[in-house]
Amino acid sequence: MTRTDLISQIKKKKSFLCVGLDTDLRKIPQHLLKYEDPVFEFNKQIIEATAKYCVAYKPNIAFYEALGTRGWESLEKTMQYMPDDVFTIADAKRGDIGNTSSLYARAFFEHLSFDSITVAPYMGEDSVLPFLEYDGKWVILLTLTSNKGSKDFQDLSIEGTSTKLYEQVLKTSQDWGNSQNLMYVVGATKAEKLGEIRKIVPDHFLLVPGIGAQGGSLKEVAKYGMNRDCGLLVNSSRGIIYASESNDFADKAKDESRKLQEEMEQYLNRYM
Amino acid sequence: MTRTDLISQIKKKKSFLCVGLDTDLRKIPQHLLKYEDPVFEFNKQIIEATAKYCVAYKPNIAFYEALGTRGWESLEKTMQYMPDDVFTIADAKRGDIGNTSSLYARAFFEHLSFDSITVAPYMGEDSVLPFLEYDGKWVILLTLTSNKGSKDFQDLSIEGTSTKLYEQVLKTSQDWGNSQNLMYVVGATKAEKLGEIRKIVPDHFLLVPGIGAQGGSLKEVAKYGMNRDCGLLVNSSRGIIYASESNDFADKAKDESRKLQEEMEQYLNRYM
Repeated sequence: MTRTDLISQIKKKKSFLCVGLDTDLRKIPQHLLKYEDPVFEFNKQIIEATAKYCVAYKPNIAFYEALGTRGWESLEKTMQYMPDDVFTIADAKRGDIGNTSSLYARAFFEHLSFDSITVAPYMGEDSVLPFLEYDGKWVILLTLTSNKGSKDFQDLSIEGTSTKLYEQVLKTSQDWGNSQNLMYVVGATKAEKLGEIRKIVPDHFLLVPGIGAQGGSLKEVAKYGMNRDCGLLVNSSRGIIYASESNDFADKAKDESRKLQEEMEQYLNRYM
Repeated sequence: MTRTDLISQIKKKKSFLCVGLDTDLRKIPQHLLKYEDPVFEFNKQIIEATAKYCVAYKPNIAFYEALGTRGWESLEKTMQYMPDDVFTIADAKRGDIGNTSSLYARAFFEHLSFDSITVAPYMGEDSVLPFLEYDGKWVILLTLTSNKGSKDFQDLSIEGTSTKLYEQVLKTSQDWGNSQNLMYVVGATKAEKLGEIRKIVPDHFLLVPGIGAQGGSLKEVAKYGMNRDCGLLVNSSRGIIYASESNDFADKAKDESRKLQEEMEQYLNRYM
C-alpha cells in the first residue's frame, strides 16, 4: 500500500488505529478451541468486528512462531483473509546481514504479502536495504521503543553530537529511504519525545505502540506526534482483542476499537 | 548444553567449528529436489558428513522462514536429527518486549530444543532476560557484526565514556547474565578488535562468523580471541555446505570441515 493510499484510508475511516493481532492460544475464549484452527478463527472474527474502525493490522510474529508450523499456517490464513483496504505490518523485528535480510523480505513481502515489516537497526544500512528494495513495501525501523530496557542503549548520547542513539537512527536512516517507504517505531510511553522526533522526521509516519496496557496516552501522542498527513499509526493489541474473555469477545473488540476511532476522529479534526 | 560440556566437546573433537546450516533450495544440488523434503535431506547429509569435525550447528532461521510452513517443518526435522553431543544455535537475531521475547524463547528453546539463540541488543535488558530465564540455555548477543553496516551504530562512541556502542553492549550485559549463559557475536572481519573485547569479557565464549566467504582470518581470530577454555565458536556456512554443487557435496563438506578442524587443532595446541 502506498503512502497516498494509506492517507486516503485514514481520511475515509477517520481513524489511525492499528489493531495488534497478538493472538495467544492461552488467552482466547475457550469455545474457539473446538475449531480446527482456533488462532485463525479468532483473528477472522476480530478482523470482521474491527475492520471498519482501523486502518492497519499488526500480527506480532512471535505469537505464531511459538506454535511452530501450525502457527505459521494460522498466519498465512490470516493474511489471506485480510481486507484489501488495510495496511498490514509484520511485527517481526528482523535484521541480519544483507543476503539473510533478503530472505526475510521474501518471506514477509512475497510469501505472506505483508505491506511492511518492523526491523531492528543495530546491524546498520546493509541489514535494512534489502527490505527497501521492494516497490510499494515499507520498513518500520525500531527507534525509541516503549519498554523499560529502551534506556539501556537507545538513550545513550553519541560523542561529539547532541544526539542520542535513537535520534542517530532517525538521522542516519534518512539516507536509506524516504517518507514513502520508511516509518519509525516510537513508543507511546515516550510521547514527550515526539516533538523532538518530529523536528528530525517531520513527514514520516510513526508506528506508536504502547497505549492501553503499557500506559501511553493517545491524546499526548496525537498532540505531539501528528503532522498534516496524520503521520501516525497507533497500535492497540490487548486492549482490543482481549477486551472480553468470553463469547462476546468480537463485540467487545468492536466496541473498544470504535471508542478509539471516535477519539482519533477528534484529534484528526483538531491537529491534521 | 552447559559450558563444561561444551568445553569438553571442544577438547574431545579438537575443534571449535560451528557449521552454519544456511540451506537454500536454490543452491543445493539439484538431485536432492526429488526428495519429499530436500532441505532436510541436505541438512541430514551435511550433519552426517561433518559431525565428527565440528562442535556446533547454526541454522540461520531466515532460510527456513523464507519457505513458510514447509521450511518450519524442515527445521523441526533437522533439530530432531541433531546428534546429542553438539551445541545448537538458532541464528534468529530476535529481541522484543518482555512478553514477546518469552514467546520466542518458548519457540526456540522448548518447541525446537535449541541450546541457544542469537538476540539483538537494541531494546535492552527486558528484551533479553526472558531468554536467560531458561536453565541450561544460552543467549548469544549481537555485539560487533561482520557486515559493513556495523559501522553505522555499533562503532559510535558513547559520550562521557571511552567506549563504543558495541563495547557498551558487552559492559551493560554483564549485569544480565554470565559466562555460563551468555555469549557474544563478534565478526571475524573485526579480528583486530578481539584483543580489546577480551579485556572486557575475558571468560565468555564468542561466536565468530565471517571466515571464508566474508573474508575473516581463522588464524587472527584464534590469536586474538582464544582464552584458556578456548572461548570461541567459529562459524563457516557457505565454505562448507556449498563446497560442491553436485552429488559429492557431502564429501566435499566433510573435506572442508576436516581442514578447518585440523587448522583449529593447531591453534588449540598453541593458545589454549
